[in-house]
Amino acid sequence: MSYDNNNIFAKILRGELPCIKVYEDDHTMAFMDIMPQCDGHTLVIPKEPAETLMDLSDEGAAAVIKTTKKIAAAVDKAMQGPGVVLFQLNGAGAGQTVPHLHFHVIPGSLAMLRQPHAMVQGDPEVLKVNAEKIKAALG
Amino acid sequence: MSYDNNNIFAKILRGELPCIKVYEDDHTMAFMDIMPQCDGHTLVIPKEPAETLMDLSDEGAAAVIKTTKKIAAAVDKAMQGPGVVLFQLNGAGAGQTVPHLHFHVIPGSLAMLRQPHAMVQGDPEVLKVNAEKIKAALG
Repeated sequence: MSYDNNNIFAKILRGELPCIKVYEDDHTMAFMDIMPQCDGHTLVIPKEPAETLMDLSDEGAAAVIKTTKKIAAAVDKAMQGPGVVLFQLNGAGAGQTVPHLHFHVIPGSLAMLRQPHAMVQGDPEVLKVNAEKIKAALG
Repeated sequence: MSYDNNNIFAKILRGELPCIKVYEDDHTMAFMDIMPQCDGHTLVIPKEPAETLMDLSDEGAAAVIKTTKKIAAAVDKAMQGPGVVLFQLNGAGAGQTVPHLHFHVIPGSLAMLRQPHAMVQGDPEVLKVNAEKIKAALG
């Protein structure tokens, strides 16, 4: 699988595009989904260039799930549940729109998954407020 | 979070309940969802007792995502796409029905997620045929 270096998450990782970041370490980054399905919708990505989970190294997968675990706990605390749903799409055929692996972390329930992804950008001020809540929960 | 040792996945791990297994190693197990949302719906669980991702150790999370990666590749190959969707529910409020962490691996697209989980058991013969295809793809 050839990796597209010009996808928007690659540009965010290189600092060429902005994001509302909640977390970063040597191997991963987490930021607000700019077209959220609900308040608190956060994305976790590896820094390793990989389109799908199948393309990612085992080390990259370990790093991304460790961060996803951390973000899931923070989203749960910040957004006050009633639970946290993760999903991750592999391949355009699955509905993956940005060809850089990303885990969606969504507060609430499976019902949230059944809503279509927003087609418009969320209010940046609301995204920032939610990011601050999640960062506070990360401690 | 207290872990319920009598949940059905704990019983499967102890060999007290059957499952249609596709993979097992020291830290994880994968088997067919007995009430599949679609053909090839497979579950990956850690052997570590953990209700949610937040309850799982980092080592357990690394093991479960490594196996999920392997199973996702096999499900993709066996069921011939058009992609693979992962999802994972944390907490009863999120819609988690079995209180032992499990990743759902589903061939196809996000549309599959929007279907309700089956409320009846799948045909065991069909589940077994799909399990054999996935095991063959695991090599």
